[in-house]
Amino acid sequence: MTFQVFDTTLRDGAQREGISYSVVDKLAVARLLDEFGVGFIEGGWPGAMPKDTEFFRRARTELDLKHAVLVAFGATRKAGVAVADDPQVRALLDAETQAVCLVAKSDIRHVERALRTTGAENLAMVRDSVAHFVAEGRRVFLDCEHFFDGYRFDPSYTSSVVSAALEAGAEVVVMCDTNGGMLPSRVTAAIGELVERLGVGPERLGIHCQNDTSCAVANTVAAVEAGVKHFQCTANGYGERPGNADLFAVVANLQLKLGLPVLPDGCLEQMVRVSHAIAEIANIAPDTHQAYVGAAAFAHKAGLHASAIKVDPVLYNHVDPSIVGNDMRILVTEMAGRASIELKSRELGLDLAGHPEALSRVTKRVKELEAGGWSFEAADASFELLVRSELPGENAARPFGLESYRVQVEHREDGAVVSEATVKVRVRGERVIATAEGNGPVNALDEALRVALKRHYPELAHFELADYKVRILEGSHGTGAITRVLVETVDGGGRDWTTVGVHENVVEASWHALVDALTYGLSYSAASVR
Amino acid sequence: MTFQVFDTTLRDGAQREGISYSVVDKLAVARLLDEFGVGFIEGGWPGAMPKDTEFFRRARTELDLKHAVLVAFGATRKAGVAVADDPQVRALLDAETQAVCLVAKSDIRHVERALRTTGAENLAMVRDSVAHFVAEGRRVFLDCEHFFDGYRFDPSYTSSVVSAALEAGAEVVVMCDTNGGMLPSRVTAAIGELVERLGVGPERLGIHCQNDTSCAVANTVAAVEAGVKHFQCTANGYGERPGNADLFAVVANLQLKLGLPVLPDGCLEQMVRVSHAIAEIANIAPDTHQAYVGAAAFAHKAGLHASAIKVDPVLYNHVDPSIVGNDMRILVTEMAGRASIELKSRELGLDLAGHPEALSRVTKRVKELEAGGWSFEAADASFELLVRSELPGENAARPFGLESYRVQVEHREDGAVVSEATVKVRVRGERVIATAEGNGPVNALDEALRVALKRHYPELAHFELADYKVRILEGSHGTGAITRVLVETVDGGGRDWTTVGVHENVVEASWHALVDALTYGLSYSAASVR
Repeated sequence: MTFQVFDTTLRDGAQREGISYSVVDKLAVARLLDEFGVGFIEGGWPGAMPKDTEFFRRARTELDLKHAVLVAFGATRKAGVAVADDPQVRALLDAETQAVCLVAKSDIRHVERALRTTGAENLAMVRDSVAHFVAEGRRVFLDCEHFFDGYRFDPSYTSSVVSAALEAGAEVVVMCDTNGGMLPSRVTAAIGELVERLGVGPERLGIHCQNDTSCAVANTVAAVEAGVKHFQCTANGYGERPGNADLFAVVANLQLKLGLPVLPDGCLEQMVRVSHAIAEIANIAPDTHQAYVGAAAFAHKAGLHASAIKVDPVLYNHVDPSIVGNDMRILVTEMAGRASIELKSRELGLDLAGHPEALSRVTKRVKELEAGGWSFEAADASFELLVRSELPGENAARPFGLESYRVQVEHREDGAVVSEATVKVRVRGERVIATAEGNGPVNALDEALRVALKRHYPELAHFELADYKVRILEGSHGTGAITRVLVETVDGGGRDWTTVGVHENVVEASWHALVDALTYGLSYSAASVR
Repeated sequence: MTFQVFDTTLRDGAQREGISYSVVDKLAVARLLDEFGVGFIEGGWPGAMPKDTEFFRRARTELDLKHAVLVAFGATRKAGVAVADDPQVRALLDAETQAVCLVAKSDIRHVERALRTTGAENLAMVRDSVAHFVAEGRRVFLDCEHFFDGYRFDPSYTSSVVSAALEAGAEVVVMCDTNGGMLPSRVTAAIGELVERLGVGPERLGIHCQNDTSCAVANTVAAVEAGVKHFQCTANGYGERPGNADLFAVVANLQLKLGLPVLPDGCLEQMVRVSHAIAEIANIAPDTHQAYVGAAAFAHKAGLHASAIKVDPVLYNHVDPSIVGNDMRILVTEMAGRASIELKSRELGLDLAGHPEALSRVTKRVKELEAGGWSFEAADASFELLVRSELPGENAARPFGLESYRVQVEHREDGAVVSEATVKVRVRGERVIATAEGNGPVNALDEALRVALKRHYPELAHFELADYKVRILEGSHGTGAITRVLVETVDGGGRDWTTVGVHENVVEASWHALVDALTYGLSYSAASVR
């Protein structure tokens, strides 16, 4: 039996607070998961959720999956109802998927207190439901809810649920750590015990972990090391409470650390792209620090060891970042030296190695600026502007120049707070004065600058400020502290870039970052903007 | 030997992209970690980082730690230099800490390629350095950098580094998974092998894990299960790349899952508070989905089983949330607030228990304000003002009232940036208009307000803004985002208090926090101000 990478991003993962997929979103996520090469995509709960019913209907004609089998999720039949008469069972069949995943209670306390039925009836529900779907030609997986807690409380009852499902024809019975309280050593021990008690091979078992101990990935890996072949995960670990086991970390660990062929060839390097695209659809900012796929997953603060990292990257990365579609990044930091600045420039496609004097000037300026509180580690675009300004032949005219600006914030007697900015700039030989309002001083400045420039640069209309971060650098000087502002800009065409500004005045710091943002976008809009 | 909870938030954790602590921040984080009951606080690298040298200097008089031993970090002596002549060794001694943590290379490839010295010289560096610090009366921990990769490549050399350090008098030698590529089963196997090879007890070993496989917490727990007693973590898992093992999840897992007494009594329930306060100081939004401490860590989507969850919460939570200072949430609108608000008020010396209607009003207002982005977690003074305003007999006249203000920032043609503010306020029946300049809009407002009030409240002259923090709450609306400002004020008499303001306009948000700061200081200057 090969590995079953079972994705439940669209069902269990959608339980995460704030996630709400449309049917179109679900179809797009399913396509991405298929491109990543998962074996099973659990698409939702038809019958219980109207959107999911619709998803399965459209999936029949609109999803053309290369790798994955679509799975519909549902519950075992209701207590005291014949399986053929249960409308939810009917809805699940109507989804017309090759495979179904049924959830069953496997903790006797939940059977009695939440389901309010008997242990015997619950076993009958499992047997009847599994047999029914098998008879209808479906592949059947059974999720044992609260498996580990139940097994700890009453191993005999919980095991009997597993046996009942297997005997009725379930392909795999999944041990769910629903409350998420497990640790790897306990997963290993429980599987060993269960396998011995039931006399079945661990390949008939599956694993589903929640991340409440921050061990969901490790618990899943431990189960696979114990012989389990079916594991349920969600993209980026999305899910209720602290989430589920992260599909990407689990797959990368199994494939790259344990050498297990869990994905089809060529799929692993889709990881970063698929992870970020799903985050985009879920409308959740990608986690910069996520293992394997985060933008900072292979980011090194350079400093003293930049040259060593350059020569021997393999000694400083636990895996080659390109295997999962990621890159190594060198952060330009307080400890910046020549080597890291050259390396960073090369990463941006700029050759400083051939211009040692320019490299010296850039290094000197970066050091001076960083001593004054500037930081380029999160502002590649400002760094690139700085490097380009020192490279021969690169010192092109800036798209506009500032004469002056004035910003005013008023809290009026009636309680209204209004912000207004006036900028005076020179654009292509012309002097332009523009005034605009905003919901704060920086927003007003941004608006005024756009008003001033839009006639000469209509493409500005597509630039949008996607993020604005403020950091006060010296906490010991009160409101007289130095302020660092980071601005992230997107251009509507999928490109984004980040710029920085530093000043004791938050408005002036923001102004620097805004000017860099527009300058960069206008100057290099045709080039490969990062 | 008891457990050694070794925190490195301020040293290794500060490697996280974007973190930049001031000395005051570091002192505040150290106090919080001590309140959480960690045994060791690694404060930084004196000599290498000027800020860290300053931190240790101030720590001698300003840190009064109840639980923790302060540790200074440094490297073994340089190759080819006598230990007594190495200036970094000198700087480390000058930090005057009870304990030091020395980092050494333990992977022969790093010794030869990055350090460019021989295996033998590296061993001598370890022996000399450890012996030197022991002779100087220090407790010595030795961090073996790249331990696991080194051990895999050349177990004999890596083991010899461990032996050299132990023989020279190191208290504990720490196995560092520097590149973060380990899995729990491999940690267990490596420790078993090493203990057998060296014939030392696992309690002489420590563990330090990075999170590149998303297994740092599990790897740390696995090491402790293998007998290791010393484990290095960072608050919230902050650190380079995907970060370090999260102190809070590790401690909670060890204490609550394995029943190991790693913290002093009464400390575990500080977890949520300490976690969030450190996030605030680091200026990183707390991770809602973080295990144990996240706002969603025990949040259940209300569905069919809402009543079951209410009746039998123990069946749906892997631990009792209150043990770690968290709450269970069932519905977003049911955020448990009353109890914690009453508790918090009692902590501030205010009796809300005797005033149930006032408690209801406060709870309602806090909920409304928090829904709008306010946060009182780090702003006791604003919270106290809010509570007092609802308590009978407490609703005294505010020391001043605002009519209007106007702030202007100009960037002039000559490049000068000037800020000017005018405030119109009512003080003790008088209308006062005052104008002042500042180095930024908020500083100008602060100055103008002081000019307006100083005749009536000469004690204002002693109030000083000690810290000013800005957090942008909604990153997706560019400069139109909501801004939260925290202001810390000191009065020269050793008292300090923190206030909060929230608005889409950074100036108005700052104004709220400033007004609260002065109101609180002027109203309760005689009482016990926090």
